[in-house]
Amino acid sequence: MSGDFTPAERAALYRAIALRRDVRAEFLSDPVGDDVLTRVLGAAHQAPSVGLSQPWRFIVVRDPETRRGVHEAFMRANNAAAETYDGATAARYRALKLAGILEAPVNVCVTCDDDPKRGNGLGRRTMPETVRYSTVCAIQNLWLAARVEGLGVGWVSILEPAELRALLEIPAHFAIVAYLCVGRVAAFAPLADLERDHWEARVPLADVLHYERFGGS
Amino acid sequence: MSGDFTPAERAALYRAIALRRDVRAEFLSDPVGDDVLTRVLGAAHQAPSVGLSQPWRFIVVRDPETRRGVHEAFMRANNAAAETYDGATAARYRALKLAGILEAPVNVCVTCDDDPKRGNGLGRRTMPETVRYSTVCAIQNLWLAARVEGLGVGWVSILEPAELRALLEIPAHFAIVAYLCVGRVAAFAPLADLERDHWEARVPLADVLHYERFGGS
Repeated sequence: MSGDFTPAERAALYRAIALRRDVRAEFLSDPVGDDVLTRVLGAAHQAPSVGLSQPWRFIVVRDPETRRGVHEAFMRANNAAAETYDGATAARYRALKLAGILEAPVNVCVTCDDDPKRGNGLGRRTMPETVRYSTVCAIQNLWLAARVEGLGVGWVSILEPAELRALLEIPAHFAIVAYLCVGRVAAFAPLADLERDHWEARVPLADVLHYERFGGS
Repeated sequence: MSGDFTPAERAALYRAIALRRDVRAEFLSDPVGDDVLTRVLGAAHQAPSVGLSQPWRFIVVRDPETRRGVHEAFMRANNAAAETYDGATAARYRALKLAGILEAPVNVCVTCDDDPKRGNGLGRRTMPETVRYSTVCAIQNLWLAARVEGLGVGWVSILEPAELRALLEIPAHFAIVAYLCVGRVAAFAPLADLERDHWEARVPLADVLHYERFGGS
């Protein structure tokens, strides 16, 4: 039961994982068709979910007025974030391009039912946070499917959830998990932006890997 | 910028997403080599992470004694869960096979630094939960990479995190995100177990998709 994917197919998956980027600056305004968007959202919808609860809900936002509202909320949160840094770091932070809300023609807000009826509670008694985690698995599926379709995705977390909730009329019992910008791109960057801009460097796998016990090597 | 994956490569990704399963019953005891395990963990380690914080830590558990301890913790949590259901539902719950901790030759506990130094706080001011979400993106990468390698993965959430913490000596500031069973399988089931066993049915994408506003269609 190891031969059902060919070496070329295995390589394609690893390549999608390696070439996926968090896109902020390279979005094109070209429209994203419903056909490709449905394929990508369909990939998200095939994610694993605790108890088969499928707790995610996707809100596809194209309206420029709504996106302007979200962009303004981002600007407020980003200015507040910049003020938490000192001197040179604050200047470096302000020079980063961290969202493409207006440039990407499609935004997707991903929400999660924190107490779904579906699944009848299975798997959620000791770790109720697994509904959120299921929703994040859906997002990673979406991100990889977008990559092979030539669509960039950028995850914007520099937002006050309450502002998004008001703008998109999200009910209180749905958590806001992610706000994604989606669109065709001029290019996928060879490095992550934060790596290229020397905000942070990658660590090797060995640094995050333990055997038998935490701290074991 | 849409032609860098061929149709066959795109199809391979969609097929991996569609054929991925949460495996509980089909594990074989065949050893999982370090080479394939490193490829799969390497895929996890290429996940997106807020601020490039790479907050995940993986603990690879092969020791049968440790797995017996985890299995006992699972049995306690699973019995407690069964007691929350009545009559026929309790019987149906008890008939489900929900973990392959002892049968799978490798277990991987996935933990997350909830307040990492790395990334210098970027993206975490208004939504600090994004470090956990980054870690879940890593898990979904691992799951898909395992699938194309012919390895099954089962996510066990029916565990008291405190018991895992004690068994694996996980420090207090690391969250326990997931406990995964990994191994070769006799077969990947055509349907999710919970679907086959009529615990829950899938909903179509249209049921979780809104336009412009939550509730918008």
